[in-house]
Amino acid sequence: MNYISLQNAFFKLKSNRAFELFVIFIIIISALEIGAKTYELPAQAVSFTKALDLFITLFFLIEIVIRFIAEPVKRKFLRSGWNVFDTLVVMISLIPIDDSEMALLARLVRVFRVLRMISVIPELRILINSLITALPQLGYVMLLMFIIFYIYAAVGSFLFQSINPVLWGNIAISMLTLFRVMTFEDWTDIQYETMEVYPFSWIFYLSFIFFTAFAFLNMVIGIVVNVMEEEHAKARADELVDEPSLLDLQLEIRELKAMITDLKK
Amino acid sequence: MNYISLQNAFFKLKSNRAFELFVIFIIIISALEIGAKTYELPAQAVSFTKALDLFITLFFLIEIVIRFIAEPVKRKFLRSGWNVFDTLVVMISLIPIDDSEMALLARLVRVFRVLRMISVIPELRILINSLITALPQLGYVMLLMFIIFYIYAAVGSFLFQSINPVLWGNIAISMLTLFRVMTFEDWTDIQYETMEVYPFSWIFYLSFIFFTAFAFLNMVIGIVVNVMEEEHAKARADELVDEPSLLDLQLEIRELKAMITDLKK
Amino acid sequence: MNYISLQNAFFKLKSNRAFELFVIFIIIISALEIGAKTYELPAQAVSFTKALDLFITLFFLIEIVIRFIAEPVKRKFLRSGWNVFDTLVVMISLIPIDDSEMALLARLVRVFRVLRMISVIPELRILINSLITALPQLGYVMLLMFIIFYIYAAVGSFLFQSINPVLWGNIAISMLTLFRVMTFEDWTDIQYETMEVYPFSWIFYLSFIFFTAFAFLNMVIGIVVNVMEEEHAKARADELVDEPSLLDLQLEIRELKAMITDLKK
Amino acid sequence: MNYISLQNAFFKLKSNRAFELFVIFIIIISALEIGAKTYELPAQAVSFTKALDLFITLFFLIEIVIRFIAEPVKRKFLRSGWNVFDTLVVMISLIPIDDSEMALLARLVRVFRVLRMISVIPELRILINSLITALPQLGYVMLLMFIIFYIYAAVGSFLFQSINPVLWGNIAISMLTLFRVMTFEDWTDIQYETMEVYPFSWIFYLSFIFFTAFAFLNMVIGIVVNVMEEEHAKARADELVDEPSLLDLQLEIRELKAMITDLKK
Repeated sequence: MNYISLQNAFFKLKSNRAFELFVIFIIIISALEIGAKTYELPAQAVSFTKALDLFITLFFLIEIVIRFIAEPVKRKFLRSGWNVFDTLVVMISLIPIDDSEMALLARLVRVFRVLRMISVIPELRILINSLITALPQLGYVMLLMFIIFYIYAAVGSFLFQSINPVLWGNIAISMLTLFRVMTFEDWTDIQYETMEVYPFSWIFYLSFIFFTAFAFLNMVIGIVVNVMEEEHAKARADELVDEPSLLDLQLEIRELKAMITDLKK
Repeated sequence: MNYISLQNAFFKLKSNRAFELFVIFIIIISALEIGAKTYELPAQAVSFTKALDLFITLFFLIEIVIRFIAEPVKRKFLRSGWNVFDTLVVMISLIPIDDSEMALLARLVRVFRVLRMISVIPELRILINSLITALPQLGYVMLLMFIIFYIYAAVGSFLFQSINPVLWGNIAISMLTLFRVMTFEDWTDIQYETMEVYPFSWIFYLSFIFFTAFAFLNMVIGIVVNVMEEEHAKARADELVDEPSLLDLQLEIRELKAMITDLKK
Repeated sequence: MNYISLQNAFFKLKSNRAFELFVIFIIIISALEIGAKTYELPAQAVSFTKALDLFITLFFLIEIVIRFIAEPVKRKFLRSGWNVFDTLVVMISLIPIDDSEMALLARLVRVFRVLRMISVIPELRILINSLITALPQLGYVMLLMFIIFYIYAAVGSFLFQSINPVLWGNIAISMLTLFRVMTFEDWTDIQYETMEVYPFSWIFYLSFIFFTAFAFLNMVIGIVVNVMEEEHAKARADELVDEPSLLDLQLEIRELKAMITDLKK
Repeated sequence: MNYISLQNAFFKLKSNRAFELFVIFIIIISALEIGAKTYELPAQAVSFTKALDLFITLFFLIEIVIRFIAEPVKRKFLRSGWNVFDTLVVMISLIPIDDSEMALLARLVRVFRVLRMISVIPELRILINSLITALPQLGYVMLLMFIIFYIYAAVGSFLFQSINPVLWGNIAISMLTLFRVMTFEDWTDIQYETMEVYPFSWIFYLSFIFFTAFAFLNMVIGIVVNVMEEEHAKARADELVDEPSLLDLQLEIRELKAMITDLKK
């Protein structure tokens, strides 16, 4: 009984708008602290950030405990990807890191706290969810793009390895070089270098640019069409509520005909 | 009575097409003068631009006074953002600036007069208004993009500060560097530099490019879908005027049925 | 009578598919000749291209005369922009150019013959016409973009003239530099240079990039929406032929009601 | 009889999901082997890849023979572009290449085996087919773009040949340089160089960028509109099955009228 009243109290607290805003405020403080740490700080400020760090870690721990207790069905808690994410971030911040070499890792982990901004603001959560649901539909275009990259990287590595091993040393480096070509970043320097040995190697670059641009365009159009269709589906669903369909009208007219045929008798 | 007749006279003047064109003409003159000042001018031309400057300032002052008097409800005048903008530009140009150090500031303020072109041409005003109304809907995507920038800038600053303090010195400089990476401007130079210390730092750049490209794409699609929906809504509103809806037809058919049922009796 | 039969004969010739293909063939030959001239040619080939040049000039002259005679209403001939264009190209090629200094100009004029490819192939003519009709609708966005460029060029010229006169010397050069910034071509080099004097000049570049990107996006969306609307209008026009409108149906139902009311009497 | 039972057995094998997955697995192995070859390998691994190569070649040969025998109508087999492609890849891999100079060619041919990934996965095949069917519709825009490139390359070659023969030596090199300008890669370096001789040559570059950007935009919009129309056509086709058209309703109402007119008599 005592536990249930605690659960209800925590549920009310969790759903409280002021509490939500305070959590966002703490995340912003934590983000600002991370930003401040990238500057040279006086000794006083450093010791202050240490205290602040401890406070933020404890606050996040308490907040997640509150949200866990507030959840009526405990199993549901970890089914939400966002809860798992929050728990992981808090857990990792709890690991005591004293070693100076690990200090960098500790800092990096704390950076991920800023991502909690996304898990706290519902609109951003919806945005990310919609991005994630769009990903699998793009899977095949991405696979196609990977195959294009892989083939060109293999060919580039075989042909240009001896010309410039820094750019074409093996298939992994070649794929990175091809990504650079795709972003048009100094791609002509790479091209002119290989054209001195293979004068027709411009075909390699131009065809690669055409294929990737085409595949990329296809991906963009795929997303646009998907989004449009969802919008149309929504619009149609809205219309269905307000308006009868042509089928409904046809049925009504048929009833009318039956009534007139009835009349004749 | 005298004031009201003045107000009416000014209202007619303000709405006069010839007057409007003359205002646009003066703004163009003012723009050309600003452009001319960026060239080395002979002494004569300099004294001429000073006289011209005075004339334009006075003309703009008179024009805004005319428009203020022409307005029947004075309170409404300052409610329009464009009027506030025009008044501010005129006010600031009135401040006498003799000091040679302030001369630059005076010049900069006069540049903003060219913006009056937007407030004078109604089509440009509509364009800007529609851009501004589109902004809040994009707010959350921009917030998401800022969070991505902030996290990557913090990580970049922690990891690469010692490699190149000019590019990764603190979180603000890092964000500027990341904007450069997003525009693909010599981003591989930055990457190759950090890959010498952290061979896997290409993951940092590639993931950043993917996330920002994805968020940007999302933003563009968001705008397109918004615009499309507005167009569809307009098209539907147009149709509603010309054509009865299916619901109207269903009601008419039901009336028909009632009439036939009536007949039977 | 003699003239009219000639006109008819020429009209048949002009509309002949084989003649059209032959004209296209001659244009391709003329394009190839222009291309060939950019290479070092042996003396023999040079004299051959001179003869070929003469032949092509004469052929184009004869072809335009045929088309002029074939036109039943002479006034109509020059009303078509494409005919005016063809006539101009042919006229200019007729001017005898012997002077070696003018040789370059003569060559340039002949390059425009390749544009006749567009005036000869109907599909390309339609494409260009649709592009030209789309231009005026984009006029205001382009004016807005020009105003943005002008203001930023004036500010840039005032502030950065003393830092780098090659890039910011006057308003014209500054606009060219800003176009370079818009294409992201080594824009950070320009930025870093001015940031040494004005550390906050990154605001200048970032705001410029945002405004132009936004205006450009608006332009693209404007075109897409225009094209879409035309397609929808076409689709609706197609439907109108096949299908009765809801209004037609409503009228029919009202007639039905009148008939039933008639019956009752 | 014996052959037909073999054909049926092979058809079953070919359609077997496990067999399909095994073929994909072998293609992945072959892709990984190609990737591995771009690294320095120990002698042992080299001899292993030779054995693996032989195995993959034989496996692909057997697989294509199975698919050929499984096909009931042999003529149909080579009508499918994908079968022709697969057969070609296998045939070329069979040519014994011992000569060290030809080793590179042999490697390149084996890279194309990775393309079999596309012919094996149906979703990728559909994607490629839809890309290929979209190509001819873009033909005229591409022709227009080629004409723009050709004219600018000719003009560029005539004017700038003496300034920088490496970039503007002949029409072919000039077209490559213009492609570089289109990708904005160090285009201002090229521009500043020619502006020293022809101060107005910026018109050449800016107009080229505008024309190609416009043509490219047109192409993208063309593709989007095409895709959209296909989607709409599909959506309409779906509706047609479920719903009567307005025409159907009009016909029904006319029947009703005839019935009422009948009643009156």
